[in-house]
Amino acid sequence: MFDVVKRLLVGRPLRSARLGETLLPKRVALAVFCSDPISSVAYATEQIVLVLAAGGLVALRAAPWIGVVVALLLVTVVASYRQTCFAYPSGGGAYVVSRENLGEGAALAAAAALLVDYVMTVAVSVTSGVVAVTSAFPVLSPHAVAIAIGLIVVLALANLRGTKESGRAFAVPTYAFVGLTVLMFVWAGVKAVTVGLPPASTAGLPVPATSGVAGLAMLLLLVRAFASGCTALTGVEAISNGVPSFEKPKARNAAITLTMMGLIAVVLFGGITVLAVALDARALPDGDPSVISQIAVSVFGGGSPVFYLFQAATAAILVLAANTAFNGFPGLASILARDRYLPRQLHNRGDRLVFSNGIVLLAAAAVALIIGFDANLDRLIQLYIIGVFTSFTLSQFGMVRHWQRSLRGSDTGRGGGRSVSDGLGGAERHAIRRSQAINTIGAIFTAVVLVVVFATKVTHGAWLAVVAMVVLFVAMRATNRYYRRVTAEVTPDPDDPAVTLPSRVHAVVLVSRLHKPALRALALARATRPAVLSAVTLNIDDEETRQLRADWEQRAVPVPLTVVEAPYRDLNGPLITYVKQLRAANPQTVFMVFIPEYVVTKWWQQLLHNQSALRFKARLLFTPGVVVVDVPYHLGVGDQGWLGARRGAIMATSAVDPDPEIGATEIRSVR
Amino acid sequence: MFDVVKRLLVGRPLRSARLGETLLPKRVALAVFCSDPISSVAYATEQIVLVLAAGGLVALRAAPWIGVVVALLLVTVVASYRQTCFAYPSGGGAYVVSRENLGEGAALAAAAALLVDYVMTVAVSVTSGVVAVTSAFPVLSPHAVAIAIGLIVVLALANLRGTKESGRAFAVPTYAFVGLTVLMFVWAGVKAVTVGLPPASTAGLPVPATSGVAGLAMLLLLVRAFASGCTALTGVEAISNGVPSFEKPKARNAAITLTMMGLIAVVLFGGITVLAVALDARALPDGDPSVISQIAVSVFGGGSPVFYLFQAATAAILVLAANTAFNGFPGLASILARDRYLPRQLHNRGDRLVFSNGIVLLAAAAVALIIGFDANLDRLIQLYIIGVFTSFTLSQFGMVRHWQRSLRGSDTGRGGGRSVSDGLGGAERHAIRRSQAINTIGAIFTAVVLVVVFATKVTHGAWLAVVAMVVLFVAMRATNRYYRRVTAEVTPDPDDPAVTLPSRVHAVVLVSRLHKPALRALALARATRPAVLSAVTLNIDDEETRQLRADWEQRAVPVPLTVVEAPYRDLNGPLITYVKQLRAANPQTVFMVFIPEYVVTKWWQQLLHNQSALRFKARLLFTPGVVVVDVPYHLGVGDQGWLGARRGAIMATSAVDPDPEIGATEIRSVR
Repeated sequence: MFDVVKRLLVGRPLRSARLGETLLPKRVALAVFCSDPISSVAYATEQIVLVLAAGGLVALRAAPWIGVVVALLLVTVVASYRQTCFAYPSGGGAYVVSRENLGEGAALAAAAALLVDYVMTVAVSVTSGVVAVTSAFPVLSPHAVAIAIGLIVVLALANLRGTKESGRAFAVPTYAFVGLTVLMFVWAGVKAVTVGLPPASTAGLPVPATSGVAGLAMLLLLVRAFASGCTALTGVEAISNGVPSFEKPKARNAAITLTMMGLIAVVLFGGITVLAVALDARALPDGDPSVISQIAVSVFGGGSPVFYLFQAATAAILVLAANTAFNGFPGLASILARDRYLPRQLHNRGDRLVFSNGIVLLAAAAVALIIGFDANLDRLIQLYIIGVFTSFTLSQFGMVRHWQRSLRGSDTGRGGGRSVSDGLGGAERHAIRRSQAINTIGAIFTAVVLVVVFATKVTHGAWLAVVAMVVLFVAMRATNRYYRRVTAEVTPDPDDPAVTLPSRVHAVVLVSRLHKPALRALALARATRPAVLSAVTLNIDDEETRQLRADWEQRAVPVPLTVVEAPYRDLNGPLITYVKQLRAANPQTVFMVFIPEYVVTKWWQQLLHNQSALRFKARLLFTPGVVVVDVPYHLGVGDQGWLGARRGAIMATSAVDPDPEIGATEIRSVR
Repeated sequence: MFDVVKRLLVGRPLRSARLGETLLPKRVALAVFCSDPISSVAYATEQIVLVLAAGGLVALRAAPWIGVVVALLLVTVVASYRQTCFAYPSGGGAYVVSRENLGEGAALAAAAALLVDYVMTVAVSVTSGVVAVTSAFPVLSPHAVAIAIGLIVVLALANLRGTKESGRAFAVPTYAFVGLTVLMFVWAGVKAVTVGLPPASTAGLPVPATSGVAGLAMLLLLVRAFASGCTALTGVEAISNGVPSFEKPKARNAAITLTMMGLIAVVLFGGITVLAVALDARALPDGDPSVISQIAVSVFGGGSPVFYLFQAATAAILVLAANTAFNGFPGLASILARDRYLPRQLHNRGDRLVFSNGIVLLAAAAVALIIGFDANLDRLIQLYIIGVFTSFTLSQFGMVRHWQRSLRGSDTGRGGGRSVSDGLGGAERHAIRRSQAINTIGAIFTAVVLVVVFATKVTHGAWLAVVAMVVLFVAMRATNRYYRRVTAEVTPDPDDPAVTLPSRVHAVVLVSRLHKPALRALALARATRPAVLSAVTLNIDDEETRQLRADWEQRAVPVPLTVVEAPYRDLNGPLITYVKQLRAANPQTVFMVFIPEYVVTKWWQQLLHNQSALRFKARLLFTPGVVVVDVPYHLGVGDQGWLGARRGAIMATSAVDPDPEIGATEIRSVR
């Protein structure tokens, strides 16, 4: 039943060998990795205008200039990450670059920042997408949380089906949004020249008195507006992280896609900012209607089909922007799990070759965040981008160090791109120096922005994101320590490569009655030829115990029977105590406890058995030096097993070969 | 934590040896076993008056006569059950008597009727007790369901503590009710003679026209009123069931207590009926205020402290009447479980020597009933007493048969009282004939009443109780068939008393890496000297598998390693398939699958391990012919176990003795 639902939702399992098949061509990769940075133009302008409005009309006039600075920053970051694509063709996320060049601490800081930010991306993008919907259909506003959660579930399912299929499904809205936005620019130009553009619906709204804000306060306001506008840069690193998913030549294709993305983002962000200023659109505190939808109303007309199409495309790309995180988070979590910083389960690929556990974890965290913040975009967005710029900065500094090592010929990184270890020619040296220069500019620029963003946002709610990063950082270190301790504990001494037999095995058979399951367990225990073989029973009912003793003697079972008293009728306690006493008396002995157990085929039959074996097994598992042997007896399937007919066979020579048939090391494969 | 709460609520566990200590003196036994029949006088009169009111004032005048018939019936049944006490001193419930004298079908019918009726007793008595509370404090009416559930929980806890303690606690309200009711009679007599008794508050209520009801319709009405009045007889059988709980001489003390109970019930029931008629008290459809509380108002005065005391005593005894069922149900269920008609768990005595599972089951069923019927007494009471009279009738017919056998000297019953098997003297024959005559009258009388009750109640909701009885009957037969099939399957052939060794053991060790847990499992598997020893690993990651092979060869592990491909990364499927294939190829071989398993000490450490061993174990349990050996590795407790230091020891002679040290059958006791 569960399996059928899973197959319907997720699809048939894929063979591991088909992993290579999920590679992406550039046009699909653009949709998969770039919906986040492209879609963020839908709210970046709004965030700038929202902050500036506090400074009155004078401040609002600065919006285009702030837009220019943000666009410049975007170009710088894109240029920087192009270098990463070539240097780390196997995936150059901030974590990988930091770990190889800056050490574990920086790497974990970058990883923590990225993990938190991926969750934020999903929460912010989906919430923003829901705002696009409610801007067009205000009647849906009260159901924002439910819609957002529904969208996250759909996204998670699409990603559980696998990257390629979800990429294909996601290409349409990305290109529709880009196309429709460009169409809006053209339409706006034509309309401005011909009939003239009507101002935005919020153009007449009063702004605070301008006189109060000047000098340092005005500067602070501009800086805060810039910090808010930096949301346009979120998700730029996704491509450098996902280089291995590209078709060959991977690095080159990734770099081209990154450039295309940068171009599209700058054009759209610039155009929307210009239009917002031209139409005098104001941002409302609850973001509804959004600035971009006000522009669309002015350009296309409020009730026109193109307007609704545009809103739909906006909503779609915003929701799909979350998909960038659904690609990034599980991949990063998988690398961290491989490196033993996160639980190993995050490294397992699911039925469809994706990191299913990471996808589910991300969706759950985002849903929790949306419920916790009641799908309030303005509050959610404050938690955003500190993580982005933390990872940007660490990644760029790491790259600077990377090139430095390449020049010294001491680069030991996994990326093989341009990092040749010796015999660097003049042209190569020049290329490396150029790359290093680009990354240095990127590093300085992003570091400054990180300081700005931290200073302006930490009191506006971003402290929560910082706390989450610190907690993650500490948890990852602790996890790693735990795994390393376990590895050290279980790794055998290389000087002692042999398998040593336990010095002494004592087999204990648990019996209640002398029925076939018990006889079978006794037979098996005897077949393992332990140093000591004994049987134990629990005296709950004197009558039953007497019967067992009588049967034991009548059948002349050649095994000593120990009766453990259970004065309080507690099944487990006395037995555990008995086993522990045995073990204390013989600390070098391994105790194999044979438990005869009924196995039934129907659920209601379970109700008719005591399940005491199950509870006893669970308790024994935590008793050191004890090995539990489950001897199942399958009821009703004619499983008579090895209870043969030869009387007294137990007294005769064992039917088991005197020595196991073990030859040299033999390795076979079975499919 | 759970343990502390349990100890607080239930008390310290008691040793099985203290079972004899919970015997009851007569005065406590009366309170424990008789609160049901005594308390039913609180609603029996009301049920008669309620039905009769439909026939107008003429019909109401018949109430005392119906009361007389009910009282006669009560005397007859008490006389009958006195015989049972002597004949079955080890407990003569309807089930036991029917099984020994009438066969399995009758016995199960009686048992099903009793089980349903015990649940009904709890539901009806507690609901009725809540009515006594709400009659005094109408403000509590909306919370009737919650109060009823709370009372059942308290009852269940008191009974989980054990019979004796609960009996002592319950003696006070039983005697208080009896005393206060007798006081009410005296007070009413004094008042009637001196100042005169005011009529009941409902005396003036109009009744339907009397003219319409006459002849056959009137007869039917009287019969229905009688059937409703028979609720006074519920719980009479409790004493005969509980003879073993009495102090010695058990049978005599039980018979005396039964007679006392009959006397008290007849006096109270007669007095209340007389007062109800004298004061012209009418029953209201929702039973609030109840007839008995109207009488108390008239006698004691509405606001007087004695009135509130009387209401409290009424409520208390009604609630405690449910205690009769808490004594009867678990005991009967335990006997049925012993005879394999109900799950064995119902036969286990809990920490306090009571049948805890039966107590919990009864409480749960009663709570479900009260919620389902919204604590509506009028609807609940319709489901009642069919079961009582079914068991009465079967029990009495069984007793008639019992005496018949005693006369023939062929009695094989467990009861040893008067059933002497040969050499019956004349006086003894006379006594038996007298007992048989009493039981015959009882049997005929109760059979007639059963027909009357069934005919008048089955359409008023009692069909639900009948359905429940039939379902229980069928389920008990099915359970017995299942247990008998299992017993037949697991009982060894008496002609082949020896324990035969399995013909061939193949040990399969599951490995993922060549760490200490795996080496330990390999060593243990080898120590059991199987016919074949092999290791198996699952290839999920080619790199890891290559590493394992390299380690295997480097360490020269003298065990062949099989690599099972897992193309879909499913951990369980391929392994289960592999084991099944092995088994299909060697159906005579027993496969011991050794699973190395990490055991951690903290819950969060569980999150950091895959738990694949657990899932694999669960699946393997259902694979016939396979024995699972858990080889735990306790992390972080320095459990280095048997990994000794002697290189190559596995190649040397095993450290295990050549043959287990088995002598003659030896039975030891360990405390």
